[in-house]
Amino acid sequence: MTTHHFAPNTFFNTLGAHAPVLSVESGDTVITETLDAHGFDRDGVQRGRDPNPMTGPFFVKGAEPGDALAVKIVRIEMNRATGWTRQGLAWNVVEPAQIPLMPAREKIVWDIERNSGRISLQEPLAALRNWSIPIEPMIGCFGVAPGDGEAISTATSGRFGGNMDYRGFKPGCEVQFPVSVPGALFFLGDVHGCQGDGEIAGTGIETSAEVEFSVRMIKGANIGWPRGETETDIFCAGNARPLEQALQHATAEMLVWLEQRYGLDRIAASHLLGMAVRYDIANVFNPAFSVVCRIEKPWLPNSN
Amino acid sequence: MTTHHFAPNTFFNTLGAHAPVLSVESGDTVITETLDAHGFDRDGVQRGRDPNPMTGPFFVKGAEPGDALAVKIVRIEMNRATGWTRQGLAWNVVEPAQIPLMPAREKIVWDIERNSGRISLQEPLAALRNWSIPIEPMIGCFGVAPGDGEAISTATSGRFGGNMDYRGFKPGCEVQFPVSVPGALFFLGDVHGCQGDGEIAGTGIETSAEVEFSVRMIKGANIGWPRGETETDIFCAGNARPLEQALQHATAEMLVWLEQRYGLDRIAASHLLGMAVRYDIANVFNPAFSVVCRIEKPWLPNSN
Amino acid sequence: MTTHHFAPNTFFNTLGAHAPVLSVESGDTVITETLDAHGFDRDGVQRGRDPNPMTGPFFVKGAEPGDALAVKIVRIEMNRATGWTRQGLAWNVVEPAQIPLMPAREKIVWDIERNSGRISLQEPLAALRNWSIPIEPMIGCFGVAPGDGEAISTATSGRFGGNMDYRGFKPGCEVQFPVSVPGALFFLGDVHGCQGDGEIAGTGIETSAEVEFSVRMIKGANIGWPRGETETDIFCAGNARPLEQALQHATAEMLVWLEQRYGLDRIAASHLLGMAVRYDIANVFNPAFSVVCRIEKPWLPNSN
Amino acid sequence: MTTHHFAPNTFFNTLGAHAPVLSVESGDTVITETLDAHGFDRDGVQRGRDPNPMTGPFFVKGAEPGDALAVKIVRIEMNRATGWTRQGLAWNVVEPAQIPLMPAREKIVWDIERNSGRISLQEPLAALRNWSIPIEPMIGCFGVAPGDGEAISTATSGRFGGNMDYRGFKPGCEVQFPVSVPGALFFLGDVHGCQGDGEIAGTGIETSAEVEFSVRMIKGANIGWPRGETETDIFCAGNARPLEQALQHATAEMLVWLEQRYGLDRIAASHLLGMAVRYDIANVFNPAFSVVCRIEKPWLPNSN
Repeated sequence: MTTHHFAPNTFFNTLGAHAPVLSVESGDTVITETLDAHGFDRDGVQRGRDPNPMTGPFFVKGAEPGDALAVKIVRIEMNRATGWTRQGLAWNVVEPAQIPLMPAREKIVWDIERNSGRISLQEPLAALRNWSIPIEPMIGCFGVAPGDGEAISTATSGRFGGNMDYRGFKPGCEVQFPVSVPGALFFLGDVHGCQGDGEIAGTGIETSAEVEFSVRMIKGANIGWPRGETETDIFCAGNARPLEQALQHATAEMLVWLEQRYGLDRIAASHLLGMAVRYDIANVFNPAFSVVCRIEKPWLPNSN
Repeated sequence: MTTHHFAPNTFFNTLGAHAPVLSVESGDTVITETLDAHGFDRDGVQRGRDPNPMTGPFFVKGAEPGDALAVKIVRIEMNRATGWTRQGLAWNVVEPAQIPLMPAREKIVWDIERNSGRISLQEPLAALRNWSIPIEPMIGCFGVAPGDGEAISTATSGRFGGNMDYRGFKPGCEVQFPVSVPGALFFLGDVHGCQGDGEIAGTGIETSAEVEFSVRMIKGANIGWPRGETETDIFCAGNARPLEQALQHATAEMLVWLEQRYGLDRIAASHLLGMAVRYDIANVFNPAFSVVCRIEKPWLPNSN
Repeated sequence: MTTHHFAPNTFFNTLGAHAPVLSVESGDTVITETLDAHGFDRDGVQRGRDPNPMTGPFFVKGAEPGDALAVKIVRIEMNRATGWTRQGLAWNVVEPAQIPLMPAREKIVWDIERNSGRISLQEPLAALRNWSIPIEPMIGCFGVAPGDGEAISTATSGRFGGNMDYRGFKPGCEVQFPVSVPGALFFLGDVHGCQGDGEIAGTGIETSAEVEFSVRMIKGANIGWPRGETETDIFCAGNARPLEQALQHATAEMLVWLEQRYGLDRIAASHLLGMAVRYDIANVFNPAFSVVCRIEKPWLPNSN
Repeated sequence: MTTHHFAPNTFFNTLGAHAPVLSVESGDTVITETLDAHGFDRDGVQRGRDPNPMTGPFFVKGAEPGDALAVKIVRIEMNRATGWTRQGLAWNVVEPAQIPLMPAREKIVWDIERNSGRISLQEPLAALRNWSIPIEPMIGCFGVAPGDGEAISTATSGRFGGNMDYRGFKPGCEVQFPVSVPGALFFLGDVHGCQGDGEIAGTGIETSAEVEFSVRMIKGANIGWPRGETETDIFCAGNARPLEQALQHATAEMLVWLEQRYGLDRIAASHLLGMAVRYDIANVFNPAFSVVCRIEKPWLPNSN
């Protein structure tokens, strides 16, 4: 149960079977740093490149294909006083007729005030006077190496995780990824200081961060898609286009999990999900969209 | 500001320019009853037919095309001790490979206990022992007559409202509909005792109910899609297939509303939505899916 | 086997259970006229209104729900020297980034030269000097009244037919529609002088026409979607959004037809379709898209 | 203008920056062999593995990012007496309600008779007595290495080509791919003896083959998606889910090409495409669907 302090020097733009930067044991904790989506660090120095340069990969000893790697997000700390967004909304979330009226997608700087816990536009707009948003940090892109020799851009996502941009990937959340290569090879980066559903501006508050996480191996878990758990919820993420397919993957994985963990057959699981399911549209911007199928714990059956 | 007690005798399976059953003034309140989705009333007597027989239409004096009709859901009271669902999930929310394993979509009866405020399976399953869900009533299908001479089945939805099956259409919510014919011609029905996101079992807890609502005309509002407001949120609903198009309609309508009500231009609205938007997948089952674009009020700019 | 000459005076903008304009027998032929999509007749006089005003409905004696109405398109004759299109492509068929660059969707007039059989721009463009296209007339919108009391805009389509805008609905083609109301109530209009796949300009060459068709009842056919046959092909049309769902409807109907007509079980039909199927994207512009599942007759099994 | 005879020994399951197996000059011809989709060669010996093992990559001297690599398919010769399919249709091309009725997706063997030019089931079905199909060979999967360090499974496709499964990739067709890495790194494999639109059985007639192709560099062409030309047509391929997005990519690329090659601005191109475009649904089975936007040459403007 070692705690590793890891200062990254190399950054990858694909999730793939790259040479590991650190080997850790199941149960270990890592404290490290992530660059922003364009590769800038805590000091504003560019050390990686677009899109979403990754810290890692971390080799987890003993992890084999068929296992799950559970990553607990212990802490995400803002380590820079600014973040940025693109102004304007993604063109696929408005009516085609509105597209010619949308603002140019310029880079906008926001001030991150750790004392107050608030984020505000560096150059305020008259219409948004005194408007600020809370610091609600999340990890935009993380996951493990895919199998079959693939190396997949950090712009997108899949069964292995990747650029899911889900605001629920926040401190306190433990996320399981399906392992496809020995050592799992875990990557992380692209922290956002805040973000709405869908990442419809194409960004959150893009910034660098210090991240503390712990890893835990689950042998032979054979999961199909990322699963997550917080104090209040359990959830599964599906990544695909169109939205309906992402929703299918997430719901299908939840059906499997409800059977494994709560002994619910398809009938019982249908009753539960029909009345209790919550869907989050994590991102509707990236090449693969992400939909989360979630259940608040009070709706789950007693397991005693 | 009259309160009308209206006992319905005719029920429609389309939203269209049918003969009104009652004329009311802007500001009036109506207390009436709705049948369940298969047409059964509080006494279990079948008085209408599948799908979603509607109470109404109510003619609102002075309402003209271009106006909005705001309907405040004052109260939804369970008036029957049972509701029903279909077991099994909709086939489009699971992986195609799981479809052959899904249970047959049989009708299942649930007990609605008004004293405890809970709903439970009439024939409990071993895997769901002692499991119950809260009574959280909502209106599955309501809206106004569409324009252009159309009469649209209550199985589906559109700009005029209809079978949106959104669990947010609950007491305390005021919903605006775009008026397309003189008098607006408001219909309602298909109350659910509870329902998850997406109506993925194809039903909520289908039951009859007593509903109290008030109407308010907003002259010349020229809204494009249903808008809603509760104590805590404002939202817009988009109805279409696929999900992405429903989401576009809802987001586009919110952009218009943010400009009208808060003076936010496209740049300011993009900043706000990018960080604050919440999406609800209301239904992913009906011929038209419904997606809600929602903002929690604390994220809105000060209007003073 | 009467031939009726019918001069229309009323035009409908919905397919619904409107009062019939003429009663005909199975086997009869009708020669009539259609207005263009904006309601202009052979003399350029506006006699109906947008969208797609329909000639009809024609009541076919003895037709009942569950029957199919087969309509043979005998002849479509251009009866006006001009047609029109909208310039610019539909915004959903190009990349979102190209939308701001698309031309305004102005009305453009084309000359229809019956002698040469060609159609050309009335005001030629330098880049398209000497460019003309063939007269290949087709029916954009036709079908029967839907059931369940619905009246559906002629802007869209469904199981009953409607605004499918398929260039294969041309002389020589016999189309079957599923009957939902007594008398079938057949409507037609919206003839195009020519059109590409997908109706991606949002129009064909919109014009008025003289149309000759014959009707034939097929008792108890219980078809689910429009079916068609020409000298060279058999096909089924599916109408829905998104494209994949339209394709599903069309393919599913073809599976049923192959079993009914050729005795092919699911295995045999899969072998045939897997190697022989042709898909036409009829329209990707209207509220419901249309996809045609087609088989060229030489690929069909011998039926002897 | 050398002709290379290349006997492959290594086979890749991703398109990526793998070590080249042969260097060729622009203008050269290569005669080589491909394995079937499961890796079996002309003698039925398994030498590669699922999915779609590739012959190559071929390094084209001088090719740089921004160039296009044009590959002319000179000849595809069946070199084995059998091919195979999966029985049953892909589950996404039928109605969900039909899925439980679909046959199991077993492997079926077909006889390829080079003398007669026909292909027939090795174990005929009663319903398909005397039924055979023509040998119409095509390349299922080919393309160049993607950029940005990605290595993409040969199960799917993208801007770089890949598993497009388009029956139009046949002898006589010249296909251009956008070059992303030095030398282009061209791969090919997965020949089908015949296939319908959409690859809706999930396979064509899967077999090994001898393929002859020539390569030609087009410096600075800066194309966005694969483009193709035959004696009769020009076309562009778009690869994505859902179908509408694949169609957008293909149409957008055609708009660019029409301007580059024929000087058609957006207005002229819209007139042309609106009346002349043909869409082919190449595959609606793989992770990325493929749609082809095609124009028959007689519809193109004179270029003199």
